[in-house]
Amino acid sequence: MEEIIELLEQNKLAELKEILINENPIDIADVFEDFPKEKYLIIFKLLPKDFSSEVFSYLSPEKQQEVIENITDDEIKFIVEDMYLDDTVDFIEEMPANIVDKILKNTSTDKRKLINQILKYPENSAGSVMTVEYVSFKDNYTVKQAIEYYRKVAIDKEETDICFVTDTKKKLVGIISLKTLILSKDDSYIQDEMDTNFVSVLTLDDQEEIAALFRKYDLTTMPVVDHEDRLVGVITVDDIVDVIDQENTEDIQKNGCDESIR
Amino acid sequence: MEEIIELLEQNKLAELKEILINENPIDIADVFEDFPKEKYLIIFKLLPKDFSSEVFSYLSPEKQQEVIENITDDEIKFIVEDMYLDDTVDFIEEMPANIVDKILKNTSTDKRKLINQILKYPENSAGSVMTVEYVSFKDNYTVKQAIEYYRKVAIDKEETDICFVTDTKKKLVGIISLKTLILSKDDSYIQDEMDTNFVSVLTLDDQEEIAALFRKYDLTTMPVVDHEDRLVGVITVDDIVDVIDQENTEDIQKNGCDESIR
Repeated sequence: MEEIIELLEQNKLAELKEILINENPIDIADVFEDFPKEKYLIIFKLLPKDFSSEVFSYLSPEKQQEVIENITDDEIKFIVEDMYLDDTVDFIEEMPANIVDKILKNTSTDKRKLINQILKYPENSAGSVMTVEYVSFKDNYTVKQAIEYYRKVAIDKEETDICFVTDTKKKLVGIISLKTLILSKDDSYIQDEMDTNFVSVLTLDDQEEIAALFRKYDLTTMPVVDHEDRLVGVITVDDIVDVIDQENTEDIQKNGCDESIR
Repeated sequence: MEEIIELLEQNKLAELKEILINENPIDIADVFEDFPKEKYLIIFKLLPKDFSSEVFSYLSPEKQQEVIENITDDEIKFIVEDMYLDDTVDFIEEMPANIVDKILKNTSTDKRKLINQILKYPENSAGSVMTVEYVSFKDNYTVKQAIEYYRKVAIDKEETDICFVTDTKKKLVGIISLKTLILSKDDSYIQDEMDTNFVSVLTLDDQEEIAALFRKYDLTTMPVVDHEDRLVGVITVDDIVDVIDQENTEDIQKNGCDESIR
């Protein structure tokens, strides 16, 4: 960090950039928290675009707001399009109305539709925690077709070890891990390789119940379905770890005196 | 569950087996907890072997001990060889000495060596929580070679979304996700596709510090290295969720009265 300040003060920006892009975006977001606005904004604008949107998604809401207020509409556009959808929703939920307007104005119609769809779910429900950026295959794909399809679409999707399988009515009928996909023969069918014994939740299910299922079944990803069993989203374990922490904090506060020492 | 009891009492074992193999092993282990010994042992022996070893790994230590006392040496052999190594170690740690002897006697030399290696790490250290069943590639592999290698070895490894990359001195030099592996060109090199900006821990690091890193960096897997940076094991997020729960319970107990209501 001292190194960063020093390079910044000596205006050695190329050197500074070189150092930063080899760091973890989460660590850079951490450093920004302790920096005054004029300093971290220079650094933020210095970063490659896709890297800066990653840093952005890890900033505190206060810093995020400051950034949005100090960058161009084009830069906002890039950040919103590049961020994972669930991170975008988390961030929008924390922003005041004028900033939300500024963000939505600079968002593509498709993405805005998805954002609004997730924003309408009640707080702490599966729908509000899920992401819609997952990969799903049709059950009549061969493994070869599935891998080709994955190569086409996965780049913009969340990094998960599980893909989902739906039938012609979009009903979730199975899950398949990337491991199974790689280990299966090219000409076998997804419906023969997939796991039909999976756990799913409904959009309005409570996140604490979902956390309990993650624990019980040692899951990394959980499909979210509607009342017709159609796949509508996916919850990943990193978001559930946050829920578990929240939940435990609430328990500590709730339990109070009599319950806390046993 | 009533259905299971009924089929068992009517001695309709083929039908019972058919139902059970479509259930999640974790749910069957749950059902066993409420069943008397004579009932669940019949069911246990009815299950296909690889399925029964999965059910076994989710039983409580009491039930596990009962099972070990009531099955043949050959059946013990199969279970120990088929279970994931970290689950085997967890289970051995809970068993009385005579049962441990019985288990180790029925374990292959290779597996016994690995078990003893993990058992010697202090409780709550990275070494005691890690598994050694991961996939690692040499950094000079092409993507094609890596996928061929993965197909050969991954079947017995833990299901993770990350593989590890080591140099000729077994030093951990990078990580690569299955996603990146599938998306990369066949003839590109692993060292050009891997992520060199990863977080790792040492074998003696404390599991609570490790849980904090999982939270901070949203990880699903964490490599464990020795003092020469050589890869020796991997910790998966499901084990860390258990640590977080334990930790929070301890905090509730420790904090006591003054701290608990704020």
